[in-house]
Amino acid sequence: MKVANLVGSRFKEKPSDCVIDSHALMVRGGYMKYVGNGIYSEFPTLRRVTSKIENIIRQEMDAIDGQEVLFPVVLPADLWDESGRYESVGSELLRFTDRNDARMVLGMTHEEAAVQLVREYAQSYTKYPFMIYQFQRKFRDEARPRAGMIRVREFTMKDAYSFHTSQEDLEKYYDVCYQAYNRIFQKAGIPEVVTVASDSGMMGGNISHEYMLLTPVGEDSIVLCEECDYRANMEAAANCVSGDKIGEQAELAMIETPDCKTIEDVCAFLHSDVESSCKAVVYQKASNGQFVVGFVRGDYEINETKLRNLVGEEIYPAEITEDSCLVAGYIGPYAISEEVEYYLDLTLQGIESMVAGANKEGYHYTGLNLNRDLKDVKYVDIAKVKAGSVCPCCGKPAITIKRGIEVGNIFQLGTKYTKAMNMTYTDENGELKNPIMGCYGIGVGRMAASICEAHHDEYGPIWPISIAPWEVEVCCLRADDEECKKVADDMYTGLQDAGIETIYDDRDVRPGAMFSDADLIGAPIRVVVSPRNLKESKVEITTRDKAVKEMVDLDKAKEYVIALRQKLFDDIASHVEAYQK
Amino acid sequence: MKVANLVGSRFKEKPSDCVIDSHALMVRGGYMKYVGNGIYSEFPTLRRVTSKIENIIRQEMDAIDGQEVLFPVVLPADLWDESGRYESVGSELLRFTDRNDARMVLGMTHEEAAVQLVREYAQSYTKYPFMIYQFQRKFRDEARPRAGMIRVREFTMKDAYSFHTSQEDLEKYYDVCYQAYNRIFQKAGIPEVVTVASDSGMMGGNISHEYMLLTPVGEDSIVLCEECDYRANMEAAANCVSGDKIGEQAELAMIETPDCKTIEDVCAFLHSDVESSCKAVVYQKASNGQFVVGFVRGDYEINETKLRNLVGEEIYPAEITEDSCLVAGYIGPYAISEEVEYYLDLTLQGIESMVAGANKEGYHYTGLNLNRDLKDVKYVDIAKVKAGSVCPCCGKPAITIKRGIEVGNIFQLGTKYTKAMNMTYTDENGELKNPIMGCYGIGVGRMAASICEAHHDEYGPIWPISIAPWEVEVCCLRADDEECKKVADDMYTGLQDAGIETIYDDRDVRPGAMFSDADLIGAPIRVVVSPRNLKESKVEITTRDKAVKEMVDLDKAKEYVIALRQKLFDDIASHVEAYQK
Repeated sequence: MKVANLVGSRFKEKPSDCVIDSHALMVRGGYMKYVGNGIYSEFPTLRRVTSKIENIIRQEMDAIDGQEVLFPVVLPADLWDESGRYESVGSELLRFTDRNDARMVLGMTHEEAAVQLVREYAQSYTKYPFMIYQFQRKFRDEARPRAGMIRVREFTMKDAYSFHTSQEDLEKYYDVCYQAYNRIFQKAGIPEVVTVASDSGMMGGNISHEYMLLTPVGEDSIVLCEECDYRANMEAAANCVSGDKIGEQAELAMIETPDCKTIEDVCAFLHSDVESSCKAVVYQKASNGQFVVGFVRGDYEINETKLRNLVGEEIYPAEITEDSCLVAGYIGPYAISEEVEYYLDLTLQGIESMVAGANKEGYHYTGLNLNRDLKDVKYVDIAKVKAGSVCPCCGKPAITIKRGIEVGNIFQLGTKYTKAMNMTYTDENGELKNPIMGCYGIGVGRMAASICEAHHDEYGPIWPISIAPWEVEVCCLRADDEECKKVADDMYTGLQDAGIETIYDDRDVRPGAMFSDADLIGAPIRVVVSPRNLKESKVEITTRDKAVKEMVDLDKAKEYVIALRQKLFDDIASHVEAYQK
Repeated sequence: MKVANLVGSRFKEKPSDCVIDSHALMVRGGYMKYVGNGIYSEFPTLRRVTSKIENIIRQEMDAIDGQEVLFPVVLPADLWDESGRYESVGSELLRFTDRNDARMVLGMTHEEAAVQLVREYAQSYTKYPFMIYQFQRKFRDEARPRAGMIRVREFTMKDAYSFHTSQEDLEKYYDVCYQAYNRIFQKAGIPEVVTVASDSGMMGGNISHEYMLLTPVGEDSIVLCEECDYRANMEAAANCVSGDKIGEQAELAMIETPDCKTIEDVCAFLHSDVESSCKAVVYQKASNGQFVVGFVRGDYEINETKLRNLVGEEIYPAEITEDSCLVAGYIGPYAISEEVEYYLDLTLQGIESMVAGANKEGYHYTGLNLNRDLKDVKYVDIAKVKAGSVCPCCGKPAITIKRGIEVGNIFQLGTKYTKAMNMTYTDENGELKNPIMGCYGIGVGRMAASICEAHHDEYGPIWPISIAPWEVEVCCLRADDEECKKVADDMYTGLQDAGIETIYDDRDVRPGAMFSDADLIGAPIRVVVSPRNLKESKVEITTRDKAVKEMVDLDKAKEYVIALRQKLFDDIASHVEAYQK
């Protein structure tokens, strides 16, 4: 391929609507084109990257006995009625009707379709276990698509579904898939991806993991321990608190605290510590609007996911009006309205003398001791973990918090879908049972964008060779110089003939423009042919990551490039091998 | 892959809802699964076939300098507003709104998206020509999906779009693509596909061709000449008539023809020939309901597409009520209401004395001579071609009509989309011009089903080796016999190691069941290992099409299979080569 013919423009100016580097570089480099809110087309350069990612994933899915299938994008709503998700999933699920007024949805994930495909096939235990997977477009009507290909509405996803006759068998296969995912990220050149325990959210099931590429612009918070292997995403991370006593008991008293609506106001007014105060965060249940209050220590935040899991249904931030049973700014656990469902976080456990809202306009309690003053006190974990917290695994105060992009996830679904959709098999004893499922996803476009985000400099992406759009770029600096052009032409043809994916820039442009474009295309190896170097019978060979910059004899250049390419592939293979051990 | 693990059931009973063989076989063979009206999932066996078809297509698209891209399935309606198709296309275009009430459509074809992708890129003549293509899901909300994968609502399509600066350049590339398409069908094992000139329909543009696989169950009628190369689909085929005089002039007379509402009734009542009668077919304009009447000779039928093209807008079969200006059953061109727009077919040209409706309940004219009795008579071609007609190409009365399935199409679009969507480039002289487009489609699933339809017997598909789900099936007839199992195991492993795609049936089932399943899977080569043949140190090697049936010495069997496989591939290659010459 010649740069002169490559469809897609490259340019210098950073687009104003790009907030993260990878998005800006992929727009500037002619990788992607905005079509609509959260909807993009892929130019040839990106399509080459995503094809390679797909092939790496396909290889690994086949290696763990996956069988490739294809489910439709458009699904009849009755399939989603069967699982109950037509009702339970929010407006991310795009619902519409066809010309016959039949209710349809756009597949945002394919558990229902997977069960429907194999429900008749797998009626005997002898058919198990098996795994099916597909690459297919998904549509999720996200409220806030952002960050280019990182969070979009339409995307290509590899989704896999495994079916088992026992939890043990699922766990065995889950582990096999866990390893395959690690190999995928290693082969794609991002061995730095870490796994974290995660919350299963709307997918159902219990155990699940996310694969996180750590980067400061990631939208997810990840909790890591610096002393042990503990890793979890913020939503799932347990918050360990010592429960040690804080302060001394005192008498319960109601104090007027005029105009003190925040924790900071109250602590300043009363000269008390924030660690002895109680913060209230109010939600409402989606089903009936009932108030749900989470109480945490003043210096902590509520982890909505944990609270939602305890409540057992969708909740949303509350709207407190004048006739509510709650007094905004003065909410506390003592003498709270009985109409309210409330939860006390573990962080409140050891506070002997607490400042908390008095549920009366303009008043707070001091000296509140929950164990003494409330009946049947029960503490639950609903707080967000903070840096420096105690690790739930090794017990050391070594928790750090980093940011990452989720590039894959795996779930143990259990029987949620097979039960709801009445998929059964006959076991060895002739009994009807529901199979146990796992599911395993990777977003292809997001993975491409994440790799760009993790591997770039100010000039463009630094693609790992295994997924780079081209492996080598040949630059002919002076197409009007006969010798220069001939040498570059031969190099291009020679490399192509050697089976190396080469892009060739023989345009009549200034070297600066040619190199900027090459940086944006991001081929790992670059061969520069110029009249000046040819005087000494040399060409310049560099790598995009600047690790190599050599003047190589012309008659050895092709072999040098072939060897260098092999070395870059070997580096990736050695990661995979090292991991296998 | 072992048959025992292959996801998808095979069974004997013909499903009651399958009207064509390929549909029945692909359901019975565990290829596809009904999900909703015109919507199917692909089981692994079919996915292997469609993947191979995709790879053959991709190879040929790359070979003619196509650059692979990816457009979204979900498109903002404003793109389709730009082209005017949001309004003009019927309810096949699925329209819906997203969570923000933004109007969206499901892409049923991607001309708009293609123009939108390259509109900024291709602003200079130096960027031309170029071609981009994709494989993507399409959704067409068909009124009557049918025949399994032949006419569905959701399907994978390869669609390509080329852009040019002159009609000559488009024609040159169109021819290149025409050849590439032929190579695709040859490589996929259906060299019998023929091209026909076609009507462009809603795509716009002028010249277009369809690739037709001839089969009696095809939904399209194809007009072929037995004496020359002329081929066209029924919609586009010109109807040649001699215009020779028929009969002798007579006096115009209005005759009472009680209860004669059909041509046959009238001819029987008047003892006249159907070749001297005039048939009326009535439509209404979609825009305003105005009546449009097509008149053809009594023994011909109206070709709606030709009539629609003349009218210049959508028409639909008329509803004639009592207060209409037309009298149902008695409509004729003489003294017809002036509110009616009517067209006279070429077949009426030479009739000297015609029987036609008198536009009066219960009356017909006899002796009507259009050239004499009407003013400014103009004849147009609006009739369907009949077998035995004169070929518009060689002039011989050698037209035959066959049926076929459309497996691909190519269009010269011209500037329809680039003009509407304001895509321009600056030419050599600094002038702004609209690029000229071509587009080129192949439906992947339909191609798989068509191949099955054209190549099957009562037992299952007979897949060409280039697209077969597996190349070889090894059948172990007695898995409980130690030697038999070992020989079969070794054969399976040996063939796999030799890079041959092999499926292995070592289930404990009766030979009849094993062979039925093998017939449904349709691997071109079968190796049967049985204790009886092993007594003579032989295995049986057959081809699915029954051309080969050999007992082969065990120690030569693997080499025999490898050579046979190569021969089958060579046969396909020889078709391609023969065509190239």
